[in-house]
Order: sequence, then structure tokens, then C-alpha cells
Amino acid sequence: MTTHALSDPAARHHPEACTIGVDFGTLSGRAVVVRVRDGAELGSAVHEYRHAVIEDRLPSTGAPLRPDWALQHPEDWRDVLRTAVPAAVADAGVDPARVIGIATDFTACTVLPTTPDGTPLALMPEWADRPHAWPKLWKHHAAQEQADRINALAHARGEKWIARYGGKISAEWQYAKALQVLEEDPAVYDACARWIEAADWIVWQLTGTESRNTCTAGYKGIHQDGAYPSPDFLAGLHPDFADFPATRLEHPLSPLGSRAGGLSSQAAHWTGLPEGIAVAVGNVDAHVAAPAAGAVENGRMLAIMGTSTCHVLNGAALAEVPGICGVVDGGIVEGAYGYEAGQSAVGDIFAWWLRQGVPEGYRTEARVSGEDLHQLLTRKAADQPVGAHGLVALDWMNGNRSPLVDHHLSGVIAGLTLDTRPEDVYRALLESTAYGTRLIVEAFEEGGIPVEEFIVTGGLKKNALLMQIYADVLRRPVSLGTSEQGPALGSAIHAAVAAGAYPDVRSAASVMGSVQRQAYVPDPARADAYDALFGEYRALHEHFGTGADLLLHRLRRIRNTARVAATD
Amino acid sequence: MTTHALSDPAARHHPEACTIGVDFGTLSGRAVVVRVRDGAELGSAVHEYRHAVIEDRLPSTGAPLRPDWALQHPEDWRDVLRTAVPAAVADAGVDPARVIGIATDFTACTVLPTTPDGTPLALMPEWADRPHAWPKLWKHHAAQEQADRINALAHARGEKWIARYGGKISAEWQYAKALQVLEEDPAVYDACARWIEAADWIVWQLTGTESRNTCTAGYKGIHQDGAYPSPDFLAGLHPDFADFPATRLEHPLSPLGSRAGGLSSQAAHWTGLPEGIAVAVGNVDAHVAAPAAGAVENGRMLAIMGTSTCHVLNGAALAEVPGICGVVDGGIVEGAYGYEAGQSAVGDIFAWWLRQGVPEGYRTEARVSGEDLHQLLTRKAADQPVGAHGLVALDWMNGNRSPLVDHHLSGVIAGLTLDTRPEDVYRALLESTAYGTRLIVEAFEEGGIPVEEFIVTGGLKKNALLMQIYADVLRRPVSLGTSEQGPALGSAIHAAVAAGAYPDVRSAASVMGSVQRQAYVPDPARADAYDALFGEYRALHEHFGTGADLLLHRLRRIRNTARVAATD
Repeated sequence: MTTHALSDPAARHHPEACTIGVDFGTLSGRAVVVRVRDGAELGSAVHEYRHAVIEDRLPSTGAPLRPDWALQHPEDWRDVLRTAVPAAVADAGVDPARVIGIATDFTACTVLPTTPDGTPLALMPEWADRPHAWPKLWKHHAAQEQADRINALAHARGEKWIARYGGKISAEWQYAKALQVLEEDPAVYDACARWIEAADWIVWQLTGTESRNTCTAGYKGIHQDGAYPSPDFLAGLHPDFADFPATRLEHPLSPLGSRAGGLSSQAAHWTGLPEGIAVAVGNVDAHVAAPAAGAVENGRMLAIMGTSTCHVLNGAALAEVPGICGVVDGGIVEGAYGYEAGQSAVGDIFAWWLRQGVPEGYRTEARVSGEDLHQLLTRKAADQPVGAHGLVALDWMNGNRSPLVDHHLSGVIAGLTLDTRPEDVYRALLESTAYGTRLIVEAFEEGGIPVEEFIVTGGLKKNALLMQIYADVLRRPVSLGTSEQGPALGSAIHAAVAAGAYPDVRSAASVMGSVQRQAYVPDPARADAYDALFGEYRALHEHFGTGADLLLHRLRRIRNTARVAATD
Repeated sequence: MTTHALSDPAARHHPEACTIGVDFGTLSGRAVVVRVRDGAELGSAVHEYRHAVIEDRLPSTGAPLRPDWALQHPEDWRDVLRTAVPAAVADAGVDPARVIGIATDFTACTVLPTTPDGTPLALMPEWADRPHAWPKLWKHHAAQEQADRINALAHARGEKWIARYGGKISAEWQYAKALQVLEEDPAVYDACARWIEAADWIVWQLTGTESRNTCTAGYKGIHQDGAYPSPDFLAGLHPDFADFPATRLEHPLSPLGSRAGGLSSQAAHWTGLPEGIAVAVGNVDAHVAAPAAGAVENGRMLAIMGTSTCHVLNGAALAEVPGICGVVDGGIVEGAYGYEAGQSAVGDIFAWWLRQGVPEGYRTEARVSGEDLHQLLTRKAADQPVGAHGLVALDWMNGNRSPLVDHHLSGVIAGLTLDTRPEDVYRALLESTAYGTRLIVEAFEEGGIPVEEFIVTGGLKKNALLMQIYADVLRRPVSLGTSEQGPALGSAIHAAVAAGAYPDVRSAASVMGSVQRQAYVPDPARADAYDALFGEYRALHEHFGTGADLLLHRLRRIRNTARVAATD
């Protein structure tokens, strides 16, 4: 039974054969049922995580967390398999027997310590009261000090791999987070047999056996040219860290789209799917979206725009682009160098502004018009001439991932006057993220990796004002991935490949993915006006981000000292 | 009848003799009835200006105004005499016959063109459709270009008076505003027989005859050492400007506290007060408040904190303090050098933040607790450790009056993160105004004018958190003027002197004014924490205010160009 799907060509070539893609986001998991022959999305379901993002207090004891911490609960993830997957199948109205494969994608680097059999330490009574036993969400930013030391040592020793990551390893990634555990709670570190990406852990839950994917190993685990960082290097960070990859990471890596195993009987029970169907290796939400949006060919940059933005781009050559998150051979699809860059917050910034509140009259207006507050502010901001609000903002409310790789930066708004209105700031924040994207596109092109097309997927593609601003600021057309659930569709494409329905991801993508080319084109006059404002953004970026005055770092330090003193 | 009050010692020494002070603010006029023998405030009334601040459209034609314009309506001011004064007398329950004098104070430089008999051009059908015929409110900021030229020429020619104004004449003052009229609407300039401060114009309405006071002539009219700027200098700005003071300003100046004349029969009719009682010469809202708050002795700085803050301080010596608004011999009281400095917006900044809105839950909470939104945010912000919000702001949302004298600056908020809350920004804005005040205090002390006491009056003195922040940031005690209506009480003190009830302002102030000394004292630990944050404020101040990168000026120019293009 365990190889049922693979052993049955009739099942995988049935005209109604489906796969399931499951996208694990920051606040919820989404399952989508996709028809293999044409990529039609037949049904979907969402499960909101019960614990959402754990930032203030540990769920087990209620103990307060330090500033910049962000954890998640593993049981919330398993709940997605138990609820969203069967709900999506029911929504699609398909016979579960028609499902020939399942694939998942996850936020990254979201990483957790487990026992040898994959049990999260956080779920064990003896460890649940220790913050470091819990999965660290991608946006856990409390390991910056460790990241700084990793970077300093890598440059001092001339480690070859550091340039593959734009010259900086992020505090969000596996090594900084693991080193923080070792240094702050060595007992948890000792008890950690496997330090594993949630992307791989969830596949373990589906198949019952550990697997590791090339994507997270490369982008988040510093696996380059077939090896992890050397024991010598790691010993320089902490003597007990020398064997970290050998003891806690090492495992054969599986290429994207390959079959990790068959669905276990327990996972079949959770999901209501046939035991033994293909389970694809883990993947990252951003990277997996590329095939869904026609972005697997070289030079097509895909921006997955939601709470944050991730940029993925294939290139023929291996180049060292300063400030990118990473480049991994086969990191997006086999046979190309997959580049990744990102903005730590995008939609989160717009939502943050709305959390400050809106005038009562606006709320009433939105109620009458049936708009949500984002729509209302967008409408009020839409007709302004470019620059009329007089504002320029730095989109660093959650730090800067690319090109500065600095999570101790913070947001700045300049140009405020007594007649600045909520929609003015809102528009300036939309624009700030476009300027941030332009800096990233320029970094790639200056680094020798052409960007021939800019494609957007993710929830923010629905904001027409935002898309037009991107077209105007970037001075290039914006294409749109057609699917409303790009990562989940991308996972379903990978599942189809893992199930043997297509020979590789490219051919599956050409049938199952789709893109609306040049949905927005730049207006030359607005683009000229934005050039001037982008110049001001760049001036702020240079002053606060790369200049000698580390004011934002000092503010962060003052803030954290004050907060820690208050809770101690 | 016209000299009735002065000729009747019995009236002015009657135990229940009263005077009336009328304070003309930015949005309303307030009258207060004060008992001469002890300064008791017996009654008061407020009249809100019907046209408030005219910034968008001309009342006469609805024509749109350009950016940075701010006008007022003269009839709104006369309405204060007609409504607030009798209402205050009624509120006090005093016999109008007991009123022996009236004095007024005004925002400055609020200035208007009139005919030879004082009729505002704005009220004449043939001129009412021209924006330049209207009174320019103090915060009309559209004459910056003229101010820049005045300053450049004054320095180029080595004009002695420029140093009396901190090295810069403000765009808010008489010459910049008049030159703007001449250059942009010469017909209005030609029709302008008198260019007069509203402070003097309102006295003209009360007495029927023109008078000019030393205070506004000195601070706003560049009257120094007995003369206005020379025709040579003025011709260098514009050939037709050479005779500006000789033709439109020149008039004997009256010292503060002196009698401008007797109440005219028309004004007696408007106010319900006895014809012929003493009317004191005009004064400025800030300067007139000093005697009400025990701040007439040298070294006592009075901060009048409301929508904006004005600082007045007497010194024994004449010093040239960079960035102050001005120093005038007898500008506050006779026999001392009166120094003035200011912050262009203070309470306006807090109100601006609330205009962005608050979360719906906060609004509900305020409704339940019976607090207004300022009180709610203050309470939520009050218990934070210093620096815990991680923010520092520049309080330049209405430009910077002292020490930069630059109205094309704008506000900046740095350190924003996704967990920044409305109360965090609110507190950062409170603090930003305290940092701005500290820079001003330091400028005086560095300039050789000691600041021995810091006294606050005005509406904001009621905010205990704000007052404590000022004590902590300034590292010195904060005293409070006792009266809730300092300027109006100060005017009433001046009225008592003009009516002959006291020989001079100092002796009247010692009886009728009052102050609560050291109402707030600094906490050393908080003061230390604020020293660090003030260092960051200073860094921002230097980068954006005095540095080589004129980013905020460029943003303002971009904004104005975009707005003008949109309305043209």
C-alpha cells in the first residue's frame, strides 16, 4: 500500500487526478486542491493558528518573553493538516481517492529543536517551560548579536560562503538562532537532537521519516558546494558549536519536487487522504510560488507580497550580489541558480498604520461605503499627485532584510506637517515599500543578474494603487501571478511532480501555473516624479542604514534596555 | 465723559474695582474679569472665531489658497468684543460700572492692511476677493522666500539689527509678509495705508484712534534703537519697499501698560462697558502673560504652552543669542531686555497625532472612562520606562521657530516598529517638544542670558505627564503659573496699570499675579535616561536642521510643486 500512488499510472493520469498544496504562513495554513491536468483550483480551506505569533508570553507558563522574540506552536501546524486539508477536499467536492500527492511549503527560517524522532521539545513536559525549546518563527529577531558575530568571523576568516548571502547571514536563520539557544540555554541545546526547519518537520509529520530539502538547507542552513560551514569556523563562535551541523542538521538533501516518501497511516488518518500517496520534500513559501506564477525562467523576478515580501529570481550565472538573502544552486528549480531577497515587512507596515487607528469619521465612511479601512485609505490616497503629501518613509518597521540585512533598523517617516492626513502617511508607506523594492532590483542588476520581468503574487497584488505605484517607481511593467494562492498552488505543482504526473517542475509549471503579463505599466510623468522622491528615500537609506551615524541602532538598544529593566 | 475713569480716583480705588483682559488666540478670544485689589478672576467667557484659521479657501469667493497660507477674518475679532466681553461681565456678576479699564493681547505677528482710518481691506468689496487683502495669521508661512532674502541682504550689508533676532528675521513677521504682498499683489500693497499688527488694530477698534506698542514694533517690526530698517536696505529688497515703514508703520510707540486712550462710544456699545475707561496699548499673548505668572524678574523664563509655545525671559544685559526670535528693550516690562523664543507647534502636534485617529477600542475605552483621547493616551503612555518606546521625533510639524527659524522644515519620527502603539508615538511627541525646549534653554545660557527658573502657563500645564517630562528632560524644576488664563490675566494687569490703579506693571504683577514654584521636580534616573535620548534628538536636529543635506526642504518643495500643479 505504501507506494500505491506511484505504482498506479492510471491514478496519476486520471483526468480528474488532483494534488494538494498546503501553504503554512505566519498566521494560518491554507490548503488548496488542484487538478493536475490543467492547474484548476477546485477548492481550498484556511486554518488560523490558535496561538498565532507568540511574542509576549510563553503559552505553557505565561512567562514574559524578551523583546524581539517570536515563537510558534507546533500543534497549530498539525491542526492545519487535520482541519484545512479535509476541508479543502470537501470544498472541492472531489473523491479523496483522486488525490495522488501532497506538498507543503512553509515560512522560513522557522526552525525548532526536536528529539531524534522529531518530537518538538516544546511539546515535552520537561522542556515546555523553557522559551528556547519552542519553535522560533522567521521573524524572531533576538539573535542579532549572534548573527553579527557569525558575520564578523566569516569575513575575518574569508569564508567563501559568506558572499553567497550578500555578505551577511541573517539573524533570522538557522545558525544565529541555534547559537542563541546554545549560549542562552545550553540544556535545551543539549537536548536538541535535530535542529530542523518547520518546512522539513511538517513533511516528517506526513511521511513519518526525516527528510531535508535543498532549498532551506541552502538559503537558511549555509549548505554550499556540498558542505556546511566547517567545525573550525563554528568552534570560533563557541567551542560547543563546532559539531552543530554534523550532529543536528546532517541528512541527505532531496531536490525540490522530489518525493520525500508516502503518506503515513497516521497522516492519512489526519487528512482523510489515501495512505501512501506521494509527499513532496519541503519547500519555502516564496520559492514554491515561482512555478505557479510563470516565474521559473531566468530573469523573471517574482515578488511574493503579503505581510512581508520575498523576491525570488533564477539566473544562469552564479554571482555575488551584495545584500541579497542568498543564492542556491537549484534553490528554486533544478538547473538554475536561485536568488532570494526580501523585505522584512510590507503589508505588515500598512496594517501597522491602521492599528494606530483612523479618525472616527473615516470609520463611519467605511461602514457606509462597505469598504474595509485599507480600501478606504487607498481610495483617499489614490488621486493625489505624486509627492503632494510631502512625505518619504523608510520601510524598516521590521528591520531591513535586503539589501542591508539589519534587523535592528526601524522605520522613519519624514516630512510630517500639521496637515498630514492618515491617507497621506498610508500612501507614503505604500511608496516606501516600492522604493525598497527598487533598491533590491537595482542591487541584482548591478550584481550582474538581469531582471527582465517583475511579477507579483500574494495578497497585495489586489491593491491596484499599490501595483501602479510599483510600476511607476520601478519604471517597468508589473505582471501578476493569476492564482489567488500562489504558494499553495506552487506546492500542488511540486506534489504533481513528486507523484510522477510530470517529469519536472518546469513542465508542470507550464501547464498548471499562469501569469497576467504587464497588468500595470508605468506612467512616464509619475515615474519622473517618483525618481525625485526615490532620491530622497535613498538619502534617508544611506543616512540611517549605511552611514556612520547608527542612530536607529542606538534607539533600539535604549529601547531594549528600558524594556528589560522594566520586566526584570 | 471720555476721561471718566482716570478722573475718578474713587472708581479706580474702589475695593471691587475690576479690569478686563481679552486674549485673542488662534481659534478663539477669551475675556476675563479680574479684581484689581487681589487679582481674583471673577468671570470669563470665550468666543470661537466663526472662520477659525482660513487655510484652504477665501471666505469671500471660495478661491483656493496656495500652500502654507493662513488668514483670519477681522470680523471674528470684533465679535469677541461684542460677545465674550459682555458675557464675561455677566459671568462675573459685577456691575459694569466697576470696570475701570480693558486691555487686549493678540497672537503675533498677525498683521493686516487697512485704509487710513483702520478699515481692513479685506472688509471692502473692492478688495475682498484678493487673498493679500486679508489679515495674515502668525502661522502664514508662505513668505519664506522673502524672509530668506531679507536675511541674506541684512547679513550681506552687516545690518546691526539682524543679531537682535538671533540672526534671522522670521517669515512670520511684518516685513516678510508685507514684501510678499508688494511682490505678489502690488495693487493691494498700494491700497494699504497702514500695515498694522492685529494687536494694535484691536486697540484702534476700542479707542477709535491708532496706537502702536513697543512690543510688536520691536519683536515683529524690527524697531531697534529708535529706528526701523533704513530705506537703503529696504530698496535693496524691492525699489518700492524703501518707504515701507515711513508710509505704513510709522507712529509714536507707546510703552507696555500705558493708556492708549479711552473706550470709544461705539466700543462701549459693543462691550457694555463704560465709555471712556482706560484702554491699554496692545500687547502680545505671550509677553503679556509674564506678570500673571510671576515671571517679570530677570532670569525667570515663562513658557506659554498651548498650540505652540512662546518663551519670554527678561535679562539685565543685551546679548545676541543665535536663533532666538528677538530681544527688545522694554519688550516685556520696562527696564529690562525682553527676550523671546518659540516653538512653532506644541499642542498642535499632539492634536495632529490624534487627528490621525485612534483604534476603535481606545475610543470605546475613553467613552467608558469618561476621559478625552488626550487623557487616555497620556494615561497609557505615563507608566512607560523612559526610552521603552524606542522612538525619537523632531517636533517640526509646523517648522522650527527657535533656534533654527526655518518654517520649511517638517516633522520626523524615527524608531518605528511593528509594535509601536499610538500611545508610544504620542509620548514621543510630548518628549520631542521637551527636547526642543531644552535646546532653546541651552541657547540662552550659552548666549549669556541665565535661565534661573522655568515657569509654564497655558493650557498644557494641566498635563502632569508632560510637565514631569519637561522637568526630567530639562533637569530642572517646573513652576506653574497659577491662573488658567495667563494672557488674559496679564492683560487685565496691564489694564489696571493703564487705569492708574498701580504705578507700574511690576507692582501690579506682585499683587495680581501668582505662581506655584517647583510644582514638578526632576527624577535623576529618568533625567539620565533622557540625556541619552536628547542626544539622539540633537543628532536628528543636526542632520535635518543644520546639516548639509536639506532633505526636508526638498520634500517641501516637491510637495508644493505637486500641489500647485494640481490646483492650477
